Amino acid sequence: MKVVKFGGSSLASAEQLKKVLDIIKSDEERRFVIVSAPGKRHSDDIKVTDALIRYYRAYTSDQDVTERQNWIIQRYKTIVDELNLDYSILEKISESITKLATLPIEGNPFLYDTFLAAGEDNNAKLIAAFFRKNGLSARYLHPREAGIIVSSEPGNARILPSSYDKLEELRNEDDILVIPGFFGVTANNQICTFSRGGSDITGSILAAGVKADLYENFTDVDGIFAAHPGVVRKPDSITELTYREMRELAYAGFTVLHDEALIPAYRGKIPLVIKNTNNPQHPGTKIVLKRRSNGLPVVGIAGDDDFVSINLSKYLMNREVGFGRKVMQILEELNIRWEHIPTGIDDMSIVLRERELTPIKEEEIVSQLTRKLEVDHVDIERDLSIIMLVGENMKSHIGVTATATKALSDSNINLEMISQGSSEVSVMFVIKTENEKKAVRALYRAFFPREDS
Amino acid sequence: MKVVKFGGSSLASAEQLKKVLDIIKSDEERRFVIVSAPGKRHSDDIKVTDALIRYYRAYTSDQDVTERQNWIIQRYKTIVDELNLDYSILEKISESITKLATLPIEGNPFLYDTFLAAGEDNNAKLIAAFFRKNGLSARYLHPREAGIIVSSEPGNARILPSSYDKLEELRNEDDILVIPGFFGVTANNQICTFSRGGSDITGSILAAGVKADLYENFTDVDGIFAAHPGVVRKPDSITELTYREMRELAYAGFTVLHDEALIPAYRGKIPLVIKNTNNPQHPGTKIVLKRRSNGLPVVGIAGDDDFVSINLSKYLMNREVGFGRKVMQILEELNIRWEHIPTGIDDMSIVLRERELTPIKEEEIVSQLTRKLEVDHVDIERDLSIIMLVGENMKSHIGVTATATKALSDSNINLEMISQGSSEVSVMFVIKTENEKKAVRALYRAFFPREDS
Repeated sequence: MKVVKFGGSSLASAEQLKKVLDIIKSDEERRFVIVSAPGKRHSDDIKVTDALIRYYRAYTSDQDVTERQNWIIQRYKTIVDELNLDYSILEKISESITKLATLPIEGNPFLYDTFLAAGEDNNAKLIAAFFRKNGLSARYLHPREAGIIVSSEPGNARILPSSYDKLEELRNEDDILVIPGFFGVTANNQICTFSRGGSDITGSILAAGVKADLYENFTDVDGIFAAHPGVVRKPDSITELTYREMRELAYAGFTVLHDEALIPAYRGKIPLVIKNTNNPQHPGTKIVLKRRSNGLPVVGIAGDDDFVSINLSKYLMNREVGFGRKVMQILEELNIRWEHIPTGIDDMSIVLRERELTPIKEEEIVSQLTRKLEVDHVDIERDLSIIMLVGENMKSHIGVTATATKALSDSNINLEMISQGSSEVSVMFVIKTENEKKAVRALYRAFFPREDS
Repeated sequence: MKVVKFGGSSLASAEQLKKVLDIIKSDEERRFVIVSAPGKRHSDDIKVTDALIRYYRAYTSDQDVTERQNWIIQRYKTIVDELNLDYSILEKISESITKLATLPIEGNPFLYDTFLAAGEDNNAKLIAAFFRKNGLSARYLHPREAGIIVSSEPGNARILPSSYDKLEELRNEDDILVIPGFFGVTANNQICTFSRGGSDITGSILAAGVKADLYENFTDVDGIFAAHPGVVRKPDSITELTYREMRELAYAGFTVLHDEALIPAYRGKIPLVIKNTNNPQHPGTKIVLKRRSNGLPVVGIAGDDDFVSINLSKYLMNREVGFGRKVMQILEELNIRWEHIPTGIDDMSIVLRERELTPIKEEEIVSQLTRKLEVDHVDIERDLSIIMLVGENMKSHIGVTATATKALSDSNINLEMISQGSSEVSVMFVIKTENEKKAVRALYRAFFPREDS
């Protein structure tokens, strides 16, 4: 039993939907289909979700909405026409879109979510009709009927743990269920959307709920590469990756799936595969709890910029019980999220993302460290990048750090900081951003040797 | 103007005291002489300070003290005889020692300190007399007269900042001043001893107080070695070392001077030299604020054992604002001092000295981390050692970490953790204790190449 999720670009046109149909037909285990709103057909195109935002703005600012409505309805109509679907489905979609502009504006915190959710919702209706027309016993299912009951947090809904029992009952359904992603309903029957990673979250929840054997996430890439293809020429694609490895890579810039979307599947121990709608024969990248070793210590190399470091030192810092906690307290009171705190004996660095450090907060931190904690020295280092060398197998490979540091040193790249914790899933290097690409390339060459280079 | 401090083994016998006299005579800048109590003459000998402790115990438990007193007086008498000193000095010493057993026991928190301090105090009297007899214009000075006024914390006295003005006046004295180390007097005129590093602290305070050009600390070794001579055969001795480097090395097991003793000299920016009373021609090891590069990136390699690591992981830990602070709060409430906290994305290690983690505290930490912070996993790793690779010049040497990790890897030593902060004065490796000596040797070979190895 598989839960299959398709992203917006996989559902943007009739041509794409035919690929989706073939994918569902080719494996009868594919029983739950989670769909996004139609995405862009070409780079200048407008996503249906963005069109719904414009529609919402027009409606709430009391402008004429006819043009906005028509654009959206027309967008669906193009697909309905190309697929030769019965117009009854278009009428339903049209009605749904038009009806949005009759909902109360005042005292309705769920209005924006309701507008946005219509993109996925109507696409699910359309796709269910398309499946049926092509001989599949398929049915559209609203998240309300599915049992995706969420917290009342507009734009940031969280699945209620009690939902899972109801979701499990869906296992007994005979039809292929086509369910819109991106939103659930509150206990008071309001539409409420998830945060970033929208439809991916729905897929992840469904997979955990129905205890799927696999959660297939169809995108427009052949899975995840061992390094960014914009930095390393034709990097290897990764066959298998653990959830922990995925997290470490996502942290430092790998953005195929938003990591929050992975939580339900991770907790439910459901393996996930990232596949390409346009190349479904490609095995893609499987994300699992545990994986077999492929003989290589490193699975991927990620790099991300816009980090800064607050470096402080104080003679005999190490002797002060509570010093570290006090530093952290200052950061927390200023609502600053830090990333790492490598420590020497009398010095400590606080590595954080640049956006966390506004000029006002920076001044306040320096002032508090100097005044309250009486540090001898504090400075701020900017333009830093983090390089993550990731791989569960590193722990059984003596010398990974040696190979990595030698590769960086041979490329004349100075290490600002280095941190390797006990988990040994990753080694983190902090370097100057100007060296980031050079560093990723050097590390890639060191850990992914190939004949043609 | 130099402040010169002699340790117990430099003052244990007439033979040693003659060396001390030569040292003082050979440089007229040596104007302040800080002395310890007589130390051991051979490995089975008893230090005067330890004899004073036995004397104190006998007195406070109402036993006969005559034998204890006589042993101590006899100890000084041997030196007086060997040096042919006038018996008037021995009478003073004898009176001082005997008088201790007349002091009030009840309600006297300074009694123990007063007993202990008598070792240094009487030795200073003896040495001043010895200097005078040999033509030096020297004079004994009690810390009370010198102006070493300290806080009322028996066994843990701290110099009062106001003392420094009075101390500076000592610059105008014509005599060579012989001052007992290890203690000061409180504002209420009570004898109060410093904590660990006793006489070294007095020397350090004096050096800062009189704004000395140099603080000479005479011991029985030719200074500091680049690695422990018990681990590495005939290691290089270090010519020059910065205070920061000294701190990092002291942290991981280098114990020539207790680092707390260095604070006054460090704050006063007084350079310090560690020299050998038995080999005063040897330049020793100079500890300075800044040093010239000697071309080597690493100045010393230290290793210390008895560390443990609390390793914890939690999926999406990284997203929880305040997680690190909460961990630290738990540790602080249990009064546990931690050393380092290397972090991954979803994991964190807390490295601490084994003595901090009693079984009860261990249980409490694990319980609180699991219950309050809901970590997914926590384990305790024991038998760890820390290896510190220290050198201010590392920051200008790309590749130090590469060389170090390669040396460890070539010796088949797995790195449990590695941390290099922004200061780049040191790189810290955490390894299994069973590999500690092997690691120090491997690193020594890598950074201190020599022809005969």
